[in-house]
Amino acid sequence: MTASFGDRLVVAVAERRSQVVLGLDPDPARLWPEAVEAAPADGSPAERAAAAVAAQCAALVEAAGPACVAVKPQLACFERLGAPGWAALAATVARARDAGLLVLADGKRGDVPVTAAAYAQALVGATPTPFGRVAGLGADAFTASPLLGRDALAPLVDAARAVGAGAFLLVRTSNPGAGDVQDVPGADGAPLWERLAALVAELGEPGVGPEGLADVGAVTGATAPEHLARMRELMPHAPFLLPGIGAQGGRVEDLAPAFAPGPAGGLVSASRSIAAAGEATGEHPRQAARREAERLRDAAWSLAAQAA
Amino acid sequence: MTASFGDRLVVAVAERRSQVVLGLDPDPARLWPEAVEAAPADGSPAERAAAAVAAQCAALVEAAGPACVAVKPQLACFERLGAPGWAALAATVARARDAGLLVLADGKRGDVPVTAAAYAQALVGATPTPFGRVAGLGADAFTASPLLGRDALAPLVDAARAVGAGAFLLVRTSNPGAGDVQDVPGADGAPLWERLAALVAELGEPGVGPEGLADVGAVTGATAPEHLARMRELMPHAPFLLPGIGAQGGRVEDLAPAFAPGPAGGLVSASRSIAAAGEATGEHPRQAARREAERLRDAAWSLAAQAA
Repeated sequence: MTASFGDRLVVAVAERRSQVVLGLDPDPARLWPEAVEAAPADGSPAERAAAAVAAQCAALVEAAGPACVAVKPQLACFERLGAPGWAALAATVARARDAGLLVLADGKRGDVPVTAAAYAQALVGATPTPFGRVAGLGADAFTASPLLGRDALAPLVDAARAVGAGAFLLVRTSNPGAGDVQDVPGADGAPLWERLAALVAELGEPGVGPEGLADVGAVTGATAPEHLARMRELMPHAPFLLPGIGAQGGRVEDLAPAFAPGPAGGLVSASRSIAAAGEATGEHPRQAARREAERLRDAAWSLAAQAA
Repeated sequence: MTASFGDRLVVAVAERRSQVVLGLDPDPARLWPEAVEAAPADGSPAERAAAAVAAQCAALVEAAGPACVAVKPQLACFERLGAPGWAALAATVARARDAGLLVLADGKRGDVPVTAAAYAQALVGATPTPFGRVAGLGADAFTASPLLGRDALAPLVDAARAVGAGAFLLVRTSNPGAGDVQDVPGADGAPLWERLAALVAELGEPGVGPEGLADVGAVTGATAPEHLARMRELMPHAPFLLPGIGAQGGRVEDLAPAFAPGPAGGLVSASRSIAAAGEATGEHPRQAARREAERLRDAAWSLAAQAA
C-alpha cells in the first residue's frame, strides 16, 4: 500500500531536517549567467530559453536543494515558453526527484469535474490513449483553487490520494489584494477563507495518516500571519504551504502556529529571495542561494522545535 | 490602434451570424476514428496521442467551425499530454485562427501578481528572453479565476487589453457543486457570485468599446439560468461565456438575458454535445457535429433576435 502524502511529508521533513520549499519561478530575463551560457547556440528562442530555464532550475536544485525538502515549480513560468517550456518543466521535475526532493506543482488549477480529472491526469496521474498510457508530471503534490466547490475538487483529491500525493488548496493567499474575495465576511461574520479552510479540513479528513497529517493542505500566505492560529484551529491536520517569505515580505518568525501538528505542519516556500540572493551582495549566485536556503531552513527548524 | 475585444467580438458575431463557441476538450480515449488513424505509426505514446488530438481538433474546426464564432480549447486536455500536448494546442490555435475563428483559451488561471503576469505572457503576450522574444499562445481571450482579487487580476486584464484581447472571469460556474463557495451569502445576504460579478463590471468598465461591450466578461454556467437576469443587471456590458449547454444539462432557450446588450452579449459554449453528436445516432461524426453546431447556432441566434 502506498503511504499517504501526509506520512511521506512527515518522513521527508524529518530526514532532511528542513521545511524549506525551493520555489522555481524562472524568469528568462533574470537567469544566472551560467544558465544563459548553458543554452545551445542553435534553436528557436523558445527552445534556447527553455534550455536555459532548465539549466537555471538544475543549478538551483544543486545549490539550494540540499537545504530543502521540496521544490515548487511555478507552472506559469514554464508554460510561457510553450512546448519547450513544458519539456523543461518535466526535466526539472525529474532533476528534483533525483536529488531526493518532493515536487509540489504550483498551478492553482480548478475546473468543473470532468476537466479537474484531466488536470489530475496531467499532474499526478496518467492518461489512457489508444497508443498507450501517457504519464503526467508525477508531482508529489499540487496547488488547486477551491472556488468551484466540492465536486470540482473531488477528482483532484481522489486522484492524488490514490497515488499517495497531496493537494494544497488556496485558503488565504499572499498577495495584497487577497482580501478582496477571500476576506469577504459571510452571513455569520466569518471571512470566506474560514469556509475554504473548513473545506480543506473536510476533504482531508479521510486522508489523515498515522503520523497525524492530512493529504489535503492549505496555501496560507506568510504575509498574513495574524490568521495562522485560527487557521490551525480550523484545519488541525492540514500541512500549510506558506509562500510569501522574503520577496513578498513574510517573515519565518511569524509562522509558529503552522508547526502545531509537528515539524511537517508548515512548509516555508521561497523563490526569488533564494534565486536572487546574490544580487544584493555580489556573491556567486549558487553560494548566495545555498546560504539563503540554509538561513531559512535554520530559522524554520528552530521555530518548529520551539512550537513542539 | 487595436480594436477592443468587445468590439472585435461584436463584429465577429455579426459577420458569422453565430454565438456558438466550439469547445475543444479532446479526450484521447474518445477520439473520432479518423483522428486515431491520422496519428503517426512511430513516436512515443504522448507524441502519437498529441498528433491524434490535434487531428481531432482540426476535424472539429473543419466540420463544426463554420457554424461557430470561436473555439475554446480546454488547456487541461492538452497539458495531460505533456510537451507534445502543448504543441498540439499551439497547432490547434493556429488552425482555428486560419478558419476565421476567435480563440478563447480556457485555463481558469489565477495567481499572485508576478505569476499572473507570467500567465498573461503565456496566453496573450510574449516573454522577453536573452535569445529573443517568445510569443505566447496568441489567444483572443482566456478564462481566469477571480479568487485572488483585484491586484492578481490586473496583470491579466491589462495584458489582454493592451493587445485587444479579453478576459472571462469565473462568476457562477456550471458544475453541481458551484454553490459550495460561489453561493455563500455575504453579510448583506447577497451570494459571493454577486461580488465576483461586481468585480467583472469594475475591471471591464475602462474597456467598454464603442459597440457597448466590455473586454472583461463573465463565465456564467448555462446550468443556473435563474441567475442570468440579476447577472445582466450587475454586469450590463460584460460578454457572458455560457458553458454547460448539452452534456451538462443547460438549454439555450433559458439564456435570453445574456443577449440584452446585443447578439454578442452571450456566447454559447458546447464541446462534448458537438463532438459526440454522432454517438447516439450512428451518423458520421463530422456530419453530426456540424448538424449539432448549426442547431445550437440557430437556437441562439433566434433567441438573441427576440431579446433585441
